[in-house]
Amino acid sequence: MGANELSIGLVQVRCGEDLEANSGKTITGIREAASRGAKIICTQELFRSTYFCQQEDATCFRLAESIPGPTTDLLQSLARELEIVIVGSLFEQRAPGLYHNTAVVIDADGALLGAYRKMHIPDDPGFYEKYYFTPGDQGFVAWETKYAKIGVLVCWDQWFPEAARLTALKGAEILFYPTAIGWLPSEKETLGEEQVDAWQTIQRSHAIANGCYLVSVNRVGVERSSNGEVIEFWGRSFVAAPSGKVVQEASDSHEEILSVPVDLKQITETRQAWPFFRDRRIDAYNGLERRFID
Amino acid sequence: MGANELSIGLVQVRCGEDLEANSGKTITGIREAASRGAKIICTQELFRSTYFCQQEDATCFRLAESIPGPTTDLLQSLARELEIVIVGSLFEQRAPGLYHNTAVVIDADGALLGAYRKMHIPDDPGFYEKYYFTPGDQGFVAWETKYAKIGVLVCWDQWFPEAARLTALKGAEILFYPTAIGWLPSEKETLGEEQVDAWQTIQRSHAIANGCYLVSVNRVGVERSSNGEVIEFWGRSFVAAPSGKVVQEASDSHEEILSVPVDLKQITETRQAWPFFRDRRIDAYNGLERRFID
Repeated sequence: MGANELSIGLVQVRCGEDLEANSGKTITGIREAASRGAKIICTQELFRSTYFCQQEDATCFRLAESIPGPTTDLLQSLARELEIVIVGSLFEQRAPGLYHNTAVVIDADGALLGAYRKMHIPDDPGFYEKYYFTPGDQGFVAWETKYAKIGVLVCWDQWFPEAARLTALKGAEILFYPTAIGWLPSEKETLGEEQVDAWQTIQRSHAIANGCYLVSVNRVGVERSSNGEVIEFWGRSFVAAPSGKVVQEASDSHEEILSVPVDLKQITETRQAWPFFRDRRIDAYNGLERRFID
Repeated sequence: MGANELSIGLVQVRCGEDLEANSGKTITGIREAASRGAKIICTQELFRSTYFCQQEDATCFRLAESIPGPTTDLLQSLARELEIVIVGSLFEQRAPGLYHNTAVVIDADGALLGAYRKMHIPDDPGFYEKYYFTPGDQGFVAWETKYAKIGVLVCWDQWFPEAARLTALKGAEILFYPTAIGWLPSEKETLGEEQVDAWQTIQRSHAIANGCYLVSVNRVGVERSSNGEVIEFWGRSFVAAPSGKVVQEASDSHEEILSVPVDLKQITETRQAWPFFRDRRIDAYNGLERRFID
């Protein structure tokens, strides 16, 4: 591989009630991706548990953990052992009663570089995140890791071009999105393909607008909450090139570990061919900080 | 049709050296779209001439005209006669030596509601627009017309999520993009499909991010400049729904007049299902007005 070439790992798995089994599965997936050459490996959102936000249930707060804590300890020792960068998503207890949907960035020497706290929090039937997670208060970040400068955003952030833009303006070459999105049974037949397509389209557009790689890692499989609600997570984890082209994509129905080669030179080449950063009208973007201009 | 249903007209044509013939062809296209029920009709970018920006040639400034001027007079009388809204692109002379790439919005009574002056100006081989056009200084605008509240952006603006966002925040229900984009012969085989896909993807993403309709009208056909440079304009004019789904799309190789039914109720319904405007982090978008955050 050339100096700018590396492989990115994506760990797309099913989760069940056994937290240890879930963690074990993602650890195994990280090891597999690393064994296939991946140097920066990203987990799906909240990989340690099922997607508990299907319902509002105070007992789920017991799933939260501190940073540093058991999961970051585990991921840090794994990163050090395998000399890989890990982007790991977890349910963070920042203080008693104060929780975030967070992704940590761990460098290849095991150092915890930092954490991104999800800024845009969804709330709609089956995805009651506003109950659990305080919106992040630290903004958008990019970190220089051993292998690339990377930014991390989480799931619902996908729908907001501002989040990708600010992270790219901070120098991120690759945007990572740990994700938990799926179909409600009542919608799958009529809207299912349209939903997946919109989800992939908006993320590919961030790669295009910013001339960077984009990596989205989604969970897969059917999860049923204790009140009988069902979500079928659609997998389809993927890597998009700076041109927006999908380089590789996982299944919508089964577990899959990807190790996807990327070439960071393509960032410079794409931005030279499509010089959008040159032409942004930064004198005229006043109003983006408004709710609505009425 | 219901109260929120209407059809949108797109006029995708070839242009040649005869200015009168070019205007006549677009006028004929507008009449055809109107006869098929279109109530808001959009022209391609700079429909009165070939895409003269293929080269830097001072004699092309003679193509510019004032607003109001002959082309707006023509479009205004047509709008009044047919009771249609027209979005018309033209090369504007604002003052001697001061030119813009402008799109006018004409209401169904023939009134000239206003003009949008292209804010983002490209410049790359075959598309030397920075030579001809001063970047717009009036920002992003939405106009209440007889049939819908609409915003207009032009071609290169397509690549900037900020432009679509600001226009949507001003209340636009439909974003119109008169466009002139095509393949260079040296790139078509290797990059052609990827370029069209990126172009459509980023525009569909604006419909998704903002929950509005998006209409893109591109010219078609091969144009050769006097210095022998060739662009094959790829047509593919299209309408995207607020979900990002392509409702209808024109050919990549021949002239086509579309009249595409849309339902403005879908804007509210899509925004309720995907409430992105609810969740924008307007407290945290500081930095979007910077060139790069280094």
